Amino acid sequence: MKSQFPIEKFDVNKLANGIQSGDIVSLAKAITLIESSKKSDRKKSNSLLERCISNKTNSIRIGITGVPGVGKSTFIESFGTHLSSMGKKLAVLAVDPSSSISNGSILGDKTRMENLVRNPNVFIRPTPAGAHLGGVANKTRESILLCESAGYDIIIIETVGVGQSEISVYEMVDYFVLLKLSGAGDELQGIKRGIIEMADSIIINKADGQNKKAAELAKAEFKLALSLYPLKSSKWKTKISTCSSLNSDGVKEIWEDIRNYIKLTNLNGFFQKNRNNQKKHWLMQTIKNTLHHEFFSNTIIKKELNIQIKLLENNKTSVIAASEKLLNLN
Amino acid sequence: MKSQFPIEKFDVNKLANGIQSGDIVSLAKAITLIESSKKSDRKKSNSLLERCISNKTNSIRIGITGVPGVGKSTFIESFGTHLSSMGKKLAVLAVDPSSSISNGSILGDKTRMENLVRNPNVFIRPTPAGAHLGGVANKTRESILLCESAGYDIIIIETVGVGQSEISVYEMVDYFVLLKLSGAGDELQGIKRGIIEMADSIIINKADGQNKKAAELAKAEFKLALSLYPLKSSKWKTKISTCSSLNSDGVKEIWEDIRNYIKLTNLNGFFQKNRNNQKKHWLMQTIKNTLHHEFFSNTIIKKELNIQIKLLENNKTSVIAASEKLLNLN
Repeated sequence: MKSQFPIEKFDVNKLANGIQSGDIVSLAKAITLIESSKKSDRKKSNSLLERCISNKTNSIRIGITGVPGVGKSTFIESFGTHLSSMGKKLAVLAVDPSSSISNGSILGDKTRMENLVRNPNVFIRPTPAGAHLGGVANKTRESILLCESAGYDIIIIETVGVGQSEISVYEMVDYFVLLKLSGAGDELQGIKRGIIEMADSIIINKADGQNKKAAELAKAEFKLALSLYPLKSSKWKTKISTCSSLNSDGVKEIWEDIRNYIKLTNLNGFFQKNRNNQKKHWLMQTIKNTLHHEFFSNTIIKKELNIQIKLLENNKTSVIAASEKLLNLN
Repeated sequence: MKSQFPIEKFDVNKLANGIQSGDIVSLAKAITLIESSKKSDRKKSNSLLERCISNKTNSIRIGITGVPGVGKSTFIESFGTHLSSMGKKLAVLAVDPSSSISNGSILGDKTRMENLVRNPNVFIRPTPAGAHLGGVANKTRESILLCESAGYDIIIIETVGVGQSEISVYEMVDYFVLLKLSGAGDELQGIKRGIIEMADSIIINKADGQNKKAAELAKAEFKLALSLYPLKSSKWKTKISTCSSLNSDGVKEIWEDIRNYIKLTNLNGFFQKNRNNQKKHWLMQTIKNTLHHEFFSNTIIKKELNIQIKLLENNKTSVIAASEKLLNLN
């Protein structure tokens, strides 16, 4: 995707000051900068991030996942409106291009969150089209920091959970929400991916009209299933609730749950411990990714890799010999 | 664990010749050599593996997983006896120290597979105590190659599925079997880990006596659940069967299933394609692991890593800055 701003003209000082005074255009530009995969932008991007580290830990990072069609955007619209009405500043980031806030343009409108997008206390950032996990999307952690530096209290990270993205999001948030629909075998679909264990909250969405009964039933089923799981290390018992984003039923209660979670985990120390672990994990991840990237983007190695793979397929070499050969080129 | 053989005296030529003539002592010594984590043994180990690459693709690699107590060793005993009665040579390898063939010694007997262990056509190799995944256990792929070079037709790799081991085993076998018990919420336990999607065969074990009815019920439940899953790229429909290892009920049918799987995937090309993909994956994995290992075992980096983690925890640096600092030491 072509950037809407000419990155080479970005002034790190100006951007940092802009962000810290809450300027939305500076924030948008800064995210464009850190998403750039050009090596020449990396230095700028790093020094910007350096400028924007804050000691603030009173933000809340919330991950929201659910299959397409589960109603993530209407939920975020309704939940975000509630947060804003309480004076909170909210940022919404998407991890994958197919998430609801990103593919709004395909449907002809800029975003499906019509009210939020016009709300001055809300910042919405879709993933650029063409982004893929491990690429631009792995800059989401950095985007979170920039949003926090710009004064956003609550950061929502939305994912449709393709591939590894659910786990990536889980590893960068304080609270992880799984949105579900009742019926249609959807319950099972969630269970098989193992996200039940990650969820701090399971919300059966679209619990309105004819769906209400089925939603209550699904809630009971989940309660039963969850009773078999051991207590999490946060000591938080996964909340199961129904919600209608359409008429905002249940939204207030969901926010109360989150506040209770924050209270509990601040008291028992899990909140800070979890953030520290996430930072350590992120550090290791960054180093590993850089090591791989540097190795596999080397043109000599790339060429030899293709040769070795062909040899492997024809049983002309072994994995051990091939890896030694490649590593010796490093 | 102290090795039972003095590795430094191993002669690669002699070992390779021994293996290729089917000598069980040479094979055992060779596995000890490749499991060694000493850098000085690596060269020997690599040249041995080089000597033992074979063009044979008529072996069958079977992964077997299941929670402790599901009856893996009695199943392997009964299944292996059947294979041996048909003139097959069988090797059984364990991935994790808590697997049934490894912790036999804790229970006072050398192994729980009393008949197999005395069978001259069967080679059994437990994981050394103290091994951990990513450590010795990641030499299982190499052990498979050595066993095949020694003329074993069927290689069973057993895991209890702690951590990532199920996935590792899945990535090195042709056919993946999940052993289950009926009742006691055990069905759910399997589903949540997402191994249903990996399994080519789900076997409800201990389907005898009073358990028979519950096993049939569990089988029906699994059939229903599996009907919701899309067809695998192998075009194989996961088999669900009941089995009594005690009186060998169902064992013959399970072997028939595997033969049908091999026939199907040889015809549609999946078998070879899958092995090639596994080799490529193994190559990338080996390179990545080596890069990490070399980086993180560097004493200067180790020291700086601890410093940077402390700084991170106290918000005195950012992940970006910390990773740059560490990578620059490389």
